[in-house]
Amino acid sequence: MVKVNTDGCKSFVGASAYTYFEKKALTAFDTLINGDGEGNDFLGWKNLPDDTPESLISDCEAVRDEWKAIGVNLVIVIGIGGSYLGARCAIEALSHGFIRPSERPQVIFAGNNLSEDYLSEVMDLAAERNTACVVISKSGTTTEPAVAFRLIKKYLEERYGGDDASKRIVAITDERKGALKTLATRQGYRTFVVPDNVGGRYSVLTPVGILPIVLAGFDVRAMLAGAAEVKREVSRRSDDNPAIRYAAMRNLLHSENGKAVEILVTYNPKLTFFAEWWKQLYGESEGKEGKGIFPASVTNTADLHSMGQFIQEGSRIMFETVVSVEKSNREIAIGSDELNLDQLNYLAGQTVGHCNAMALLGTRIAHIDGGVPQMEVSVERLDEFNLGGLFYFFEFACGISAYILGINPFNQPGVEAYKKNMFALLRKPGYEKQTEEILKRL
Amino acid sequence: MVKVNTDGCKSFVGASAYTYFEKKALTAFDTLINGDGEGNDFLGWKNLPDDTPESLISDCEAVRDEWKAIGVNLVIVIGIGGSYLGARCAIEALSHGFIRPSERPQVIFAGNNLSEDYLSEVMDLAAERNTACVVISKSGTTTEPAVAFRLIKKYLEERYGGDDASKRIVAITDERKGALKTLATRQGYRTFVVPDNVGGRYSVLTPVGILPIVLAGFDVRAMLAGAAEVKREVSRRSDDNPAIRYAAMRNLLHSENGKAVEILVTYNPKLTFFAEWWKQLYGESEGKEGKGIFPASVTNTADLHSMGQFIQEGSRIMFETVVSVEKSNREIAIGSDELNLDQLNYLAGQTVGHCNAMALLGTRIAHIDGGVPQMEVSVERLDEFNLGGLFYFFEFACGISAYILGINPFNQPGVEAYKKNMFALLRKPGYEKQTEEILKRL
Repeated sequence: MVKVNTDGCKSFVGASAYTYFEKKALTAFDTLINGDGEGNDFLGWKNLPDDTPESLISDCEAVRDEWKAIGVNLVIVIGIGGSYLGARCAIEALSHGFIRPSERPQVIFAGNNLSEDYLSEVMDLAAERNTACVVISKSGTTTEPAVAFRLIKKYLEERYGGDDASKRIVAITDERKGALKTLATRQGYRTFVVPDNVGGRYSVLTPVGILPIVLAGFDVRAMLAGAAEVKREVSRRSDDNPAIRYAAMRNLLHSENGKAVEILVTYNPKLTFFAEWWKQLYGESEGKEGKGIFPASVTNTADLHSMGQFIQEGSRIMFETVVSVEKSNREIAIGSDELNLDQLNYLAGQTVGHCNAMALLGTRIAHIDGGVPQMEVSVERLDEFNLGGLFYFFEFACGISAYILGINPFNQPGVEAYKKNMFALLRKPGYEKQTEEILKRL
Repeated sequence: MVKVNTDGCKSFVGASAYTYFEKKALTAFDTLINGDGEGNDFLGWKNLPDDTPESLISDCEAVRDEWKAIGVNLVIVIGIGGSYLGARCAIEALSHGFIRPSERPQVIFAGNNLSEDYLSEVMDLAAERNTACVVISKSGTTTEPAVAFRLIKKYLEERYGGDDASKRIVAITDERKGALKTLATRQGYRTFVVPDNVGGRYSVLTPVGILPIVLAGFDVRAMLAGAAEVKREVSRRSDDNPAIRYAAMRNLLHSENGKAVEILVTYNPKLTFFAEWWKQLYGESEGKEGKGIFPASVTNTADLHSMGQFIQEGSRIMFETVVSVEKSNREIAIGSDELNLDQLNYLAGQTVGHCNAMALLGTRIAHIDGGVPQMEVSVERLDEFNLGGLFYFFEFACGISAYILGINPFNQPGVEAYKKNMFALLRKPGYEKQTEEILKRL
């Protein structure tokens, strides 16, 4: 269950202005539910919580179990953008921060950058471990994952031999066509499908997210159940629908109050990468045609001693959305100390989680007083079920929000611009004219 | 040597406007050099590269060697804000991403948040390892580090006994007064000094940064040498001083072009935390009196597939500062492939680093075309020497920049606001009146 609290915006917005944006949100909701808006060939994500077949999960578990049987303790997941952020977000949110249980493989990510140092170090680790690889690419020709996979494939083939290497590689790619599909068929890789009607940033509940999350040892059934619960909640046409309320309020704060930046705030370092997933979802969905709310993030209380000063007293250009978790998974009580030099005895017997909750509440009040509107999106605890719910909540609200803004939430035309220039500079065949043009500009 | 390239701003700013801000920057430079501006009792950082005594470094190395002799393989560094970000930034920039050499301890950070899950997991790791602790706090009563230290101190005393525990704890604190100083004297902890005239966010070249960096196995002498070289460079009163150029241009882009957000861009995941250090430095120095440029960051090319769409085509509210590294520390060439299904053979024989450089250049041109001014701050390679240079460069430029904006770069009055509310909510003795008031508002 995902709850949204917008009380921290009340002193900043008028009731009639909110009603106006609520109406816009209800219209956008209808567009999203009816599937008759821009980008409506990319609405496959809406039904994933209900339509994901049990066989998909058991196929993922079969890979996990087979790799376990041959002693795999490192899985390199190759992918970029939406083929990277959801899985990493989930695995970081659910994993122990420092210790990996010996029965689970370490899951690391590659092919999401062109850093030579990074890729070299991935190969160092691969050489020390019993290694397998999941390569995720719809086409198989995106530069970053293709460069990483060419290297890792060759390494696995040399180390384990071609047949054995093919058992250590799973491809998640187009169902029928493309370079990676062709290669997978030829080499006999197991494959999973990137659905045609789900864009990268909405793909965490497809095999793109599910397989890495299963390999890392987490319960995807619970994640899908959490998403399904939230799907029912946010699919109601009602003014107390939390997705409608979040989408209406953020657009109101942007359009009427001139807030240019939304900061996603968390109070648990495990959720730092959740904010990265959210930034892609909102930034890439809304940042078009000169529009959009700039998505930023902080992890508190650490960043109260970093960005906190700016948020409290700097340029008044932002509002905050706090993703809060009501109950910790672990409990630590603060002890009593005879000397009490640190003056903490007044907290003796309290849990650290209680202090965190009071920091959150105190910050909320301080920031409202400082002119920063606050929303809160809360779940009961940090586990697969609630994480699935958060994924679905923010995806659905994003669709509504972009439609309010008059933007197609499901395309990303601007992502090609750097690629074209990079291909020209790298003298890719077919780009001869662009190469000539760009070299003149240097 | 740190170089600044502002050519990517030329199409956005007029020459006379730049001259105007250059003059402001020269005046601000004089204020910083002469030490007669606001906050001038916190200028101790200016001379650290030259004035840091060799004995300080050898004292840090003595701790490192003593702990090594008793087999310490985990050092928990407790601190928040400036007592955390610089050391973590340096250690992440310089460490292997996945493998720790067995002769070096793992350095982790605690006391920078109030997450119960996080602290529990720190304690899990401590129990598995041969553990020591560095606690960093000027006063010894800041809530986050005090909570963590109370817990870790008790654990070490129970596990190793009081005398042995005291040998495993080093305190970095005030020279004379405060709770932690008192405790350290009483328990016989080794201590290092947090200088009175250096604020947290400028403290990476004091013991606050130096001890953890030495313990992690890195060469602080080279870091100080790099900082000293840049100190000489940026202390010249000249219009080609890179710090003056960076400070002038960013203020011009903010004041005249209305750019509200500066994005620090890196192309190596090892520098992701460098951006976090930079955000504190600039956000906390400038975000006051309703002013300041909002600091954000991306790590490319990963985030070209996340925030890239927004930067290319969304709200035109930002400029970018790219921190680039000319040469990789490692080299990987792209191989040839008989099938060439991935169509990468045109890159065969090229290094991954060359592709990264072309991605950087292609993105620079794409973003300029999209309306995003670009600056570039570059160093030759990522090592201690150049990292020291980057630290000094950004610190010095920050002083100039805040003075241009008319802001005291060295205080942080807004950081207290959340603490006061938190204390009231936690019913801290002395806050009875505030408790009563805040409870009425809930």
